[in-house]
Amino acid sequence: MPEVFAARRARLRERCHAAGSAAALVTRPANVRYLAGAAPPGAALLLAPRDGAEDVLLCPHPLEEQQPAGAREGGRPDDLLRIRPLGGSLSPEGGDAAVAAAGMAAEEGADSLAVEEHHLTVARHRAIGSVASRLRLTDLGTAVEQMRVVKDEEEIACLRAGAEIADQALGELLESILVGRTERHLALELERRLVDHGADGPAFPTSVATGPHAGRPGHRPTDRRVEEGDFLSVCMGAAYQGYRCEIGRTFVIGTTPADWQIELYDVVFAAQRAGREALAPGAEHREVDRAARQVLASAGYGSALPARTGHGVGLEIAEDPQLAPATMGKLDACVPVTVEPGVHLPGRGGVRIDDTLVVRPEADGGPELLTITTKELLAL
Amino acid sequence: MPEVFAARRARLRERCHAAGSAAALVTRPANVRYLAGAAPPGAALLLAPRDGAEDVLLCPHPLEEQQPAGAREGGRPDDLLRIRPLGGSLSPEGGDAAVAAAGMAAEEGADSLAVEEHHLTVARHRAIGSVASRLRLTDLGTAVEQMRVVKDEEEIACLRAGAEIADQALGELLESILVGRTERHLALELERRLVDHGADGPAFPTSVATGPHAGRPGHRPTDRRVEEGDFLSVCMGAAYQGYRCEIGRTFVIGTTPADWQIELYDVVFAAQRAGREALAPGAEHREVDRAARQVLASAGYGSALPARTGHGVGLEIAEDPQLAPATMGKLDACVPVTVEPGVHLPGRGGVRIDDTLVVRPEADGGPELLTITTKELLAL
Repeated sequence: MPEVFAARRARLRERCHAAGSAAALVTRPANVRYLAGAAPPGAALLLAPRDGAEDVLLCPHPLEEQQPAGAREGGRPDDLLRIRPLGGSLSPEGGDAAVAAAGMAAEEGADSLAVEEHHLTVARHRAIGSVASRLRLTDLGTAVEQMRVVKDEEEIACLRAGAEIADQALGELLESILVGRTERHLALELERRLVDHGADGPAFPTSVATGPHAGRPGHRPTDRRVEEGDFLSVCMGAAYQGYRCEIGRTFVIGTTPADWQIELYDVVFAAQRAGREALAPGAEHREVDRAARQVLASAGYGSALPARTGHGVGLEIAEDPQLAPATMGKLDACVPVTVEPGVHLPGRGGVRIDDTLVVRPEADGGPELLTITTKELLAL
Repeated sequence: MPEVFAARRARLRERCHAAGSAAALVTRPANVRYLAGAAPPGAALLLAPRDGAEDVLLCPHPLEEQQPAGAREGGRPDDLLRIRPLGGSLSPEGGDAAVAAAGMAAEEGADSLAVEEHHLTVARHRAIGSVASRLRLTDLGTAVEQMRVVKDEEEIACLRAGAEIADQALGELLESILVGRTERHLALELERRLVDHGADGPAFPTSVATGPHAGRPGHRPTDRRVEEGDFLSVCMGAAYQGYRCEIGRTFVIGTTPADWQIELYDVVFAAQRAGREALAPGAEHREVDRAARQVLASAGYGSALPARTGHGVGLEIAEDPQLAPATMGKLDACVPVTVEPGVHLPGRGGVRIDDTLVVRPEADGGPELLTITTKELLAL
């Protein structure tokens, strides 16, 4: 495994050299973890100016003070990295690590340093400039984020394991009595079950939405209790070894769904299927979005459509690509994405169906569905 | 209540004018919430160039898409603010809101705009500069953070309510059987109880540490199970209407603590009491730290002391002031802080005792203890 991280760093170093920068400073936590195997709080990763020179992970605190759960949740830095603890700094944001790394790059003779301008604050950028005034600071841009879009099979295995955990947790909840319980309690119980089944924790705050709340994107659970006749929508995911998946389902509470509920469900289900079926290497991001979106629009739900109908997942829950009307770019194989159209009718509720899938070529059987809980409309 | 936020904005506007800036752009979420009553994801607050002109809260998404739980957890923007939704932007970081706000300031005739350089990224700062090229960008610095240090009585009431919830949740846990349960499960149960008692959620990830883990600062719960003879340390807090408190206690599992456990506990207890007793308006931050620290050092625990022995709390769990050896500055009345010295002996475990208190003058009875769970060494 250490070789994986070293190989990623070598690829990034090549890109930097090609762009004319000697060294690179990575500070965005998910990027640090992708390249170093771990991202202790406030850490900064310095890619050495030359191949062969050691890359350095600078940490505000000694590593032995880090979490023992780190091997699971926070990862472990790989053996090929030099670790440099900075000692008792108090900065929660790791300013010292970034500034110390820049000083180190200057000492090692680098003349330029590529930094993540979309992550570094203005104040920290200035501090780096004054500590290492001989260094020309350039912009690394989203080079690491772009590397992260296509996953290797080990990364996909982590997502698959996370999806399995989420399916289990959701399945167990559905076997319990739901009427009378609050959104908050259901959400907490789901999160407990995720951990029971081996997740690092929830991939993002679990959303449980009942009745008029159902189908709202990003709904935060309230004290509303589940009632007969409600739509109940759940959106949740597990983080497993740092990788985050997502599943969303909508159910009806009671014996028989109302006609409007069945109709709405069928439309969202058809839209979600259209989105899933559009997933293929080479498909444009906006075409996948359009496939799902036009089903909703032609059923008369064109006015209040979501900004996007899906997005990439990985070390962060919402990564590139964005499946949205104005996004440029095409899908590659081995890109995990969500497909999650939904409709919310103010005052009445709504439906949201959300899967995590991996884009695969037709020859490999097409998109791989990671979240396998049924999408039939269940009356619970 | 809306007047509270408007008054805060008026104070900040005065400071900006005194520093020569016409308008100010606030983007750090806790600062936005402090000044606007709410901080929807990605929102930016524009303080109008002139008194009398409307301040504007720019939000990437329409407010009705925000959480209904918002009134409790995320707050509500006050009525005196103009709210401007930007419509379907996808940026999770609210870049558009900050850039749009700067454009608005320029349209309104501002010639300069103070921004939070310690929060704005280099990329966003540049985008603001290119959208509003006539604007001179200055640094607001930590002006809002400084305003937030001294709390009003309504803020303190929220902290007091949160502390009461945390005390309740901890008290209930202590009545249950602990041996054989894992750190993770105990932490999850504590968080569930916080929500049961009306918290928005945990103030920070709940730490439960057993046996050799006990007393480690920031320990993340593992699958280790509670055993007879263990130290068990818990550090947790409730968020209540956005305000975050902290309590930490250490217990012994079993009938009788070992001698080394009693000795270690007594030392940490004495250090924590010394820190609490040093809290007074006018006391230097580093003197409070020293009061606690020297008790630990003179008992022979000088080698592995924590970087700080306490810190401010409020809308964020770790605010100014820092109670640490090198911090300059003095305490004021109505500043809530933690006092949380601890000792961790590698391989054996340790003790941590942590209270949230409000600095009050002697005439008002001295420091107000918010977290009232007993600090006797309980054998559970």
